[in-house]
Amino acid sequence: MRAFNFSPGPAALPDSVLEQARDELLDYQGKGLSIMEMSHRSKEFMAVADSAEADLRELLGIGGDYHVLFMHGGASMQFAMVPYNLAGPRDTVDYVHTGSWGTKAIAEAEPLARVNVAATSGATGFDRIPARDAWRLTPGAAYCHIVSNETIGGVQFHEFPETQAPLVADMSSELLSRPIDVSRFGLIYAGAQKNLGPAGFAVVIVHRDLAGHARPGTPRLLDYGIQAENGSMFNTPPTYAIYLASLVLRWVKAAGGVAEMARTNRRKAAKVYALIDASNFYRAPVLRQDRSVMNVPFTLADASLDGEFLAGAEARHLLNLRGHRSVGGMRASLYNAVSEEAVDALIEYMKSFEAEYG
Amino acid sequence: MRAFNFSPGPAALPDSVLEQARDELLDYQGKGLSIMEMSHRSKEFMAVADSAEADLRELLGIGGDYHVLFMHGGASMQFAMVPYNLAGPRDTVDYVHTGSWGTKAIAEAEPLARVNVAATSGATGFDRIPARDAWRLTPGAAYCHIVSNETIGGVQFHEFPETQAPLVADMSSELLSRPIDVSRFGLIYAGAQKNLGPAGFAVVIVHRDLAGHARPGTPRLLDYGIQAENGSMFNTPPTYAIYLASLVLRWVKAAGGVAEMARTNRRKAAKVYALIDASNFYRAPVLRQDRSVMNVPFTLADASLDGEFLAGAEARHLLNLRGHRSVGGMRASLYNAVSEEAVDALIEYMKSFEAEYG
Repeated sequence: MRAFNFSPGPAALPDSVLEQARDELLDYQGKGLSIMEMSHRSKEFMAVADSAEADLRELLGIGGDYHVLFMHGGASMQFAMVPYNLAGPRDTVDYVHTGSWGTKAIAEAEPLARVNVAATSGATGFDRIPARDAWRLTPGAAYCHIVSNETIGGVQFHEFPETQAPLVADMSSELLSRPIDVSRFGLIYAGAQKNLGPAGFAVVIVHRDLAGHARPGTPRLLDYGIQAENGSMFNTPPTYAIYLASLVLRWVKAAGGVAEMARTNRRKAAKVYALIDASNFYRAPVLRQDRSVMNVPFTLADASLDGEFLAGAEARHLLNLRGHRSVGGMRASLYNAVSEEAVDALIEYMKSFEAEYG
Repeated sequence: MRAFNFSPGPAALPDSVLEQARDELLDYQGKGLSIMEMSHRSKEFMAVADSAEADLRELLGIGGDYHVLFMHGGASMQFAMVPYNLAGPRDTVDYVHTGSWGTKAIAEAEPLARVNVAATSGATGFDRIPARDAWRLTPGAAYCHIVSNETIGGVQFHEFPETQAPLVADMSSELLSRPIDVSRFGLIYAGAQKNLGPAGFAVVIVHRDLAGHARPGTPRLLDYGIQAENGSMFNTPPTYAIYLASLVLRWVKAAGGVAEMARTNRRKAAKVYALIDASNFYRAPVLRQDRSVMNVPFTLADASLDGEFLAGAEARHLLNLRGHRSVGGMRASLYNAVSEEAVDALIEYMKSFEAEYG
């Protein structure tokens, strides 16, 4: 049987996607080959890549003034690619710092441009989004960078800020979880291994005006303009990962699109937060208005029970609930492919654990 | 039925590897999850990554003085990573230019260091390895770069040169096809999608003395030292691709290791070249002593028959024989997973085609 998987990423994928991948693993569309054994320039794989892009454009309402790129290296590569492509070495770039991924994005930008941390919630343990009116943005900044959902801390932007500079968002752990107005962003990127597919690539949605201006010396593979000109095939792309993403995107469409995902995701998260808030045993560290719908970190009243909690969960096939090693406690990641049945099983378990140990 | 796949890459994988991947796609070792749905830090995936590294070390006899890294981005990312890590902007780096991949490696190095093309066979259409005594190497060069097998041109180094500077080799389309003496190299890299697994990562074998000296400002993801310190998990690696590679490596071991691969590969290639050389209808463009065992480019006496040849091949399930768009003609790629049965079927077809049209 399939377990309930609350992994923060690489994360749960829909059963039907994995079943289809299994059924055609050795023979794709009667060709006698696996899709992973075919050239990226074969008509079969080109159709896969085209379908993935078209479905992503349709699901998120991405306009023709944006490129959609499938890039090697995960979101971490984007931490460097964004400054390489959108800023010069003397430009100032604004970062809003709301957690661990923001820390990494800032560290990667620092050798490449003048980084201004426009706001941070570090003083309160990254338990919130800093109030917009306290941000110290730089006039003339090349861009303003946010992490729209901090996977480790469980902090999420529910409204997106207005900024003069192009808004750049790391949406790794929330892309496809809700409708977004892409036109408000200069660039959106996301590592695939949350709502989109297996680990091994990132999707980049970049306004055409921002591509093609990489600083001199930028490796070609890291140049949005070159990647856009080459349809993300400047070199061999991670074809099998993109194939799996194409199946996931089709699954999202069939399930009603991102509006339906958002409704289900809000309901799933609300159930878990409601249990936590009603309890004196569990505690959620993030301020209510900024809590993530995707990643729900929580702690037990007595941390010495953590091992017991995880062992009991595993016995019920509720897997990967351990919090990130940097923060401890628990974390339930509730991505699109985590079913409401899985969430209900988690809640039932949390209640019974509290009844026994609380 | 499974077709005979002569794709240059992404390329044929062993049937037994794909069968195992299929059988455990939804449930890895009874955990109720796919291996691609597990954290890269799970004990299951860590065991996969450890096994891949241990098997690669054993198969190639890699000493403890070398790091083995699994890196994002394919070999093309290494074209930039090598100069970022092994040279400063004012250092001279030597390149031996034997075909299309050398051209790309040189283009990527040029903004990053002083490139000296020490030798090229461009004047004769990249039909050979330039004679070693004609190479103009630079005293004090940071490294000397070769492409040990040119996938497009079908030119291969059968002996490796002695050089004062550390020897760096792009072995993408031949790694694991024969025994190599790793200790003669400073660094070896290879995109996975030939003999190792699906597209989406590269393996890097780098001497410890050459890691940890990346130039200031190098993105962390592109720094061999940081990657080595983090066991290739500075960010989320392409876990499923590495899992498939671990199965391929086990298959190579079970099939007798790289010495046995080399024997079979030489026999396969010799059969095809023998047919070409005995024929007035087919022609191989590369000088005999430098012909690739992995990629056999050939032309028909009458190029207007190319379409006929390819259609007839496809009807016999002999797939992906079209030469690269930059050179035309045909190319049979004979990687480890291409069986002798496949090669015999190709030869039979080539003979019958010549009998009909020659």
